[in-house]
Amino acid sequence: MSIYLHDIPLSEAKSRFQHELENAGLYGLLGIEEIPLNENAVGRVLAESVWARISSPHYHASAMDGFAIRAENSKDASLSTPVLLRFEEQTIYVDTGDPLPGWANAVIPIENVEPLDEYGKISDQPRQPYAIRIRAAVTPWSHVRPMGEDIVATELVMPAGQTLRPIDLGALAASGQTSLKVAQVPRVAILPTGTELVAIGSDLKAGDIIEFNSIVLAAQVNQWGGNADRFPIAKDKFDAICDRVEEAARDYDLILINAGSSAGAEDFSFGVIEKLGKVLVHGVAVRPGHPVILGMIARKDKKLIPIIGIPGYPVSAALTGEIFVQPLLSLWLGRKDQLQGETVSAKITRKVNSPQGDDDFMRVAVGRVNGQVLAAPLARGAGMINTLVHADGIVLIPRGIQGLEAGSDVEVRLYRSQKEIEHTIFAIGSHDLTLDILAQFLTHYSRRLVSVNVGSQGGLIALKRGEAHFAGSHLLDPETGVYNKSYIQTYLPDCPVSVFGWVGREQGLIVARGNPKNIKSLKDLEHPDISYVNRQRGSGTRVLLDYQLGKLGISDEKITGYTEEEFTHLAVAAAVKSGRADCGLGITAAANALDLDFVPLYVEMYQLVIPNSILESHLLDPIFELSQDNAFRKAISKLPGYDLSQMGLRID
Amino acid sequence: MSIYLHDIPLSEAKSRFQHELENAGLYGLLGIEEIPLNENAVGRVLAESVWARISSPHYHASAMDGFAIRAENSKDASLSTPVLLRFEEQTIYVDTGDPLPGWANAVIPIENVEPLDEYGKISDQPRQPYAIRIRAAVTPWSHVRPMGEDIVATELVMPAGQTLRPIDLGALAASGQTSLKVAQVPRVAILPTGTELVAIGSDLKAGDIIEFNSIVLAAQVNQWGGNADRFPIAKDKFDAICDRVEEAARDYDLILINAGSSAGAEDFSFGVIEKLGKVLVHGVAVRPGHPVILGMIARKDKKLIPIIGIPGYPVSAALTGEIFVQPLLSLWLGRKDQLQGETVSAKITRKVNSPQGDDDFMRVAVGRVNGQVLAAPLARGAGMINTLVHADGIVLIPRGIQGLEAGSDVEVRLYRSQKEIEHTIFAIGSHDLTLDILAQFLTHYSRRLVSVNVGSQGGLIALKRGEAHFAGSHLLDPETGVYNKSYIQTYLPDCPVSVFGWVGREQGLIVARGNPKNIKSLKDLEHPDISYVNRQRGSGTRVLLDYQLGKLGISDEKITGYTEEEFTHLAVAAAVKSGRADCGLGITAAANALDLDFVPLYVEMYQLVIPNSILESHLLDPIFELSQDNAFRKAISKLPGYDLSQMGLRID
Repeated sequence: MSIYLHDIPLSEAKSRFQHELENAGLYGLLGIEEIPLNENAVGRVLAESVWARISSPHYHASAMDGFAIRAENSKDASLSTPVLLRFEEQTIYVDTGDPLPGWANAVIPIENVEPLDEYGKISDQPRQPYAIRIRAAVTPWSHVRPMGEDIVATELVMPAGQTLRPIDLGALAASGQTSLKVAQVPRVAILPTGTELVAIGSDLKAGDIIEFNSIVLAAQVNQWGGNADRFPIAKDKFDAICDRVEEAARDYDLILINAGSSAGAEDFSFGVIEKLGKVLVHGVAVRPGHPVILGMIARKDKKLIPIIGIPGYPVSAALTGEIFVQPLLSLWLGRKDQLQGETVSAKITRKVNSPQGDDDFMRVAVGRVNGQVLAAPLARGAGMINTLVHADGIVLIPRGIQGLEAGSDVEVRLYRSQKEIEHTIFAIGSHDLTLDILAQFLTHYSRRLVSVNVGSQGGLIALKRGEAHFAGSHLLDPETGVYNKSYIQTYLPDCPVSVFGWVGREQGLIVARGNPKNIKSLKDLEHPDISYVNRQRGSGTRVLLDYQLGKLGISDEKITGYTEEEFTHLAVAAAVKSGRADCGLGITAAANALDLDFVPLYVEMYQLVIPNSILESHLLDPIFELSQDNAFRKAISKLPGYDLSQMGLRID
Repeated sequence: MSIYLHDIPLSEAKSRFQHELENAGLYGLLGIEEIPLNENAVGRVLAESVWARISSPHYHASAMDGFAIRAENSKDASLSTPVLLRFEEQTIYVDTGDPLPGWANAVIPIENVEPLDEYGKISDQPRQPYAIRIRAAVTPWSHVRPMGEDIVATELVMPAGQTLRPIDLGALAASGQTSLKVAQVPRVAILPTGTELVAIGSDLKAGDIIEFNSIVLAAQVNQWGGNADRFPIAKDKFDAICDRVEEAARDYDLILINAGSSAGAEDFSFGVIEKLGKVLVHGVAVRPGHPVILGMIARKDKKLIPIIGIPGYPVSAALTGEIFVQPLLSLWLGRKDQLQGETVSAKITRKVNSPQGDDDFMRVAVGRVNGQVLAAPLARGAGMINTLVHADGIVLIPRGIQGLEAGSDVEVRLYRSQKEIEHTIFAIGSHDLTLDILAQFLTHYSRRLVSVNVGSQGGLIALKRGEAHFAGSHLLDPETGVYNKSYIQTYLPDCPVSVFGWVGREQGLIVARGNPKNIKSLKDLEHPDISYVNRQRGSGTRVLLDYQLGKLGISDEKITGYTEEEFTHLAVAAAVKSGRADCGLGITAAANALDLDFVPLYVEMYQLVIPNSILESHLLDPIFELSQDNAFRKAISKLPGYDLSQMGLRID
């Protein structure tokens, strides 16, 4: 077993895989299945082009309720010289869709006809009169749908490779199909392995990992047109995993084994595939997701089937699905349409580094600010599935590029529609829990709030660069005791902005439940036995801390953990919760969220800074509406430590 | 029963419907259902916002395979002054994902460690050594995924109204959910009615209409998140339809009755709804689809449920689904995300008229030519389902507007991705059956061919306006006997184009099987007993006819049916097939397609005219590749009457 896997470029990995699939006769449709033409055919892929068996309409059909006539018989009719046509001899009544009699070549709508009885009066049986009187000539074939108007027998109705939509089924039926030849659905076995894995709903202890990759992979496979089955979790035992793989090989076209694809002590995928078949690739130069295995397994009947060893980190697993599984399923289904979403050009909002040897897939949030599409890079960790949920798209930084400067143009493959991007509000700045509630309420207004948490100063800088619709900020001026104003003058001298009140909130020390170290004020931070967790420079909470430390004459060098920086209140609370630190300055709601205790010290103003140009665009109107909305205010007042008296009021 | 329905504006119809739904307590979620968190939850809509129950990771987890240590113990380590840490006392081995022991706060990856045995040599048990030697200091929390790094307990994971994607299931599981509260799926009954309707696969006689609207509607409903059941076809009998509706009302949330929504003799929907409940709207000012009925039905338990009378023409039925059914399902599901596709701005390629009183939904083909997005209006007939299949999008011409000039800017709601639009080849001009085969083969090259058939001259005019990528043309110059050249000089003096050979094809008279009227040449057209069907002015076939008639000295006034114009060869063949005409000039393949006889008269050159600017763009490269492709040429040579010797050769 190789201990260290060896990354090869993505293109090489794909071509090795393709070569082996070709050898195994698996580089094309898996098979063709004939299914009845009904609503369940939606999403299936046509295996053969469909040609019309019959025309539509398949006869000359009346396009109106009215009277079928021969057009020549009407040619002398006018307002003053009406023409009489005898019922059954020269005309008959037809409903819409009825076939024309052989001798007729036009229809007069019933409302343009005077139906007469045998005495020349208007008949009380308008559809079975004695005769009809018409006062205008009609041209041949008027109000008739001639045979083949819609579809002519033998014409191409739909090419092979089309994924069937609802409307397609109508056209296929109209052209005389009764069943459809579609690509066989690939069967995919998903094998979760790992002694540390526990099923959803299990009681959790440290080290347990909830097994959900198989659910995400199964859902992906089903969405891409395959049929996935999830196997039970297998422990990290070589023989047991071998047995499981052999079992799956019998009934499936593709095996996904997750995880154990790396080269750790408990990573058996490589060995299992080596034993049961061969490994083509171990390690692909992509981030995240590099410890991928591509291999072929020999079934009992000697037929080879592909197996993919999928890395365990959830982001890596999902992206490996997109990079390797989806193209394979599309190939097997003969899909010709584009599965992948739209792309859009955007500017990235900050500098990013990228490993030079890898194809690097970077998750981004996307929004349009001041007419410019912006992509804000999200956290890169392969374990952070939440970043994939919040991602609006993905940017490929190709091999050979070491990073990108802020403002670089990138191509984003979108996970959302461009329409949603247009309705996205980009908030960059200080985070507050009320923004989560705002995000939730904004969905009622077809708005999506994307919050990027970079602290108050970072928010003002983003506004200066035209990269945000608003910034939440709570920067205290130590000279004046006024929030935000002097900072705005410093950072945004040329950018006209307005400031609105949002919430007053208590700041204080977040401490463990019961406050076991009896922390009472910032003075206690000097105690060598007390460890602190800080917020990052530029955050309003950090400014507040430094301001108060200065007033108290406390040197930051005396504070254990002063250099430990977190980016949100909740992250500070999480650090305290886990015992990583004894306390951290933050807001009541964060302490409350994690069931921690709180030592209130100050009340600060959290305000919204909004460029005037954005205010005029009405994108943010729902925020102001919500600021006066009872349900919204009630939802926030359930959080402790908030004062809403200034919410939505113009401060500056 | 009202005989004439009365159209009201769409907005008024929707507000009447909304008002009645509110009264019935049906203007919101139908109900909430709790389902297990697994791959089947994809596509369901969250009924409540989800907040994290646990953090992810829910413990401090090692991010690498390596050794857990206390960072402080490494601070003196350097290349020259390594530090020794004793196994089990100062360090333990951890795999990726393992929890850190309480005393540890960092991990050193295994590859950065020298594992030693008790004699100070490199241990042969690298994961259970006697001690480890390290040569670099590490900072606290390096290679650790701290608790809550991805998700912090209590934070908002996903807002209500989100339609679940595969990746969302991962984040929900990571945040400790085991089941999900989702919107109840609306149950929709689809009732096809009509004595003229026959099920798919029936033997067809004139007047029979294949019932497929219910399939399209059911597929739409399922795609929009509902659960549709199709009922058997009901005959046009008032009592039988009443019984059927009452039966459906028992078990469903919404009834769609199709058709019978108009005011014809056999249209019972209005009366049935009047009897069992009330009609809110009969007739909405939209095209196509105006004879819509909106109503409420009283169930046995007095509860009211909505019923929609859907018009019978397939395009009307599908659009009524989009206009009324989809928004209702989204409302009931509490869907906050955008279901409707992208929109794009485009110029329409020809003048269109529109009824002033109606919201007019116009189907268009969309492509990008010379950097400009163009929308070519398709045929308007409500019966032409094929136009909806070929539609790339839809343009709403609002009430009050009587029509649009060619070149007007319109907003297109796309049915396809913009990416597909970028790969679309717009062919405007003369139609040839080989273009259908070309369309089919081009799908292998990620190209989509959209053919708009306007005849040869129309194609050259489209090229002049920059509205097509190429034009198929077969215009004979009567002076020189040369094809296309002089016409190009006349129509495209300032547009540099190239001409490529495509096919030589036999032109002749398409006649009924067995040629019952013994037609032998154009001379026979003068016979009063022989009727002709013509091609439209500007088509190459029409030019050929007029040229040959001139040579023979035959006056067009003597030809019965000379003024009857069709737009394609197949339409001419269909006219002959149906007995509408005895003969028409056209190509062998069209006669063959409909199993007709053919009297060959001439051979003509069908060529491709391509602007040089388009040639340079490589969009059309696959066409030239295919022109030399064996499989493609073989597919064409199966059609009769084609000469491929000049295919793909540059003529001019």
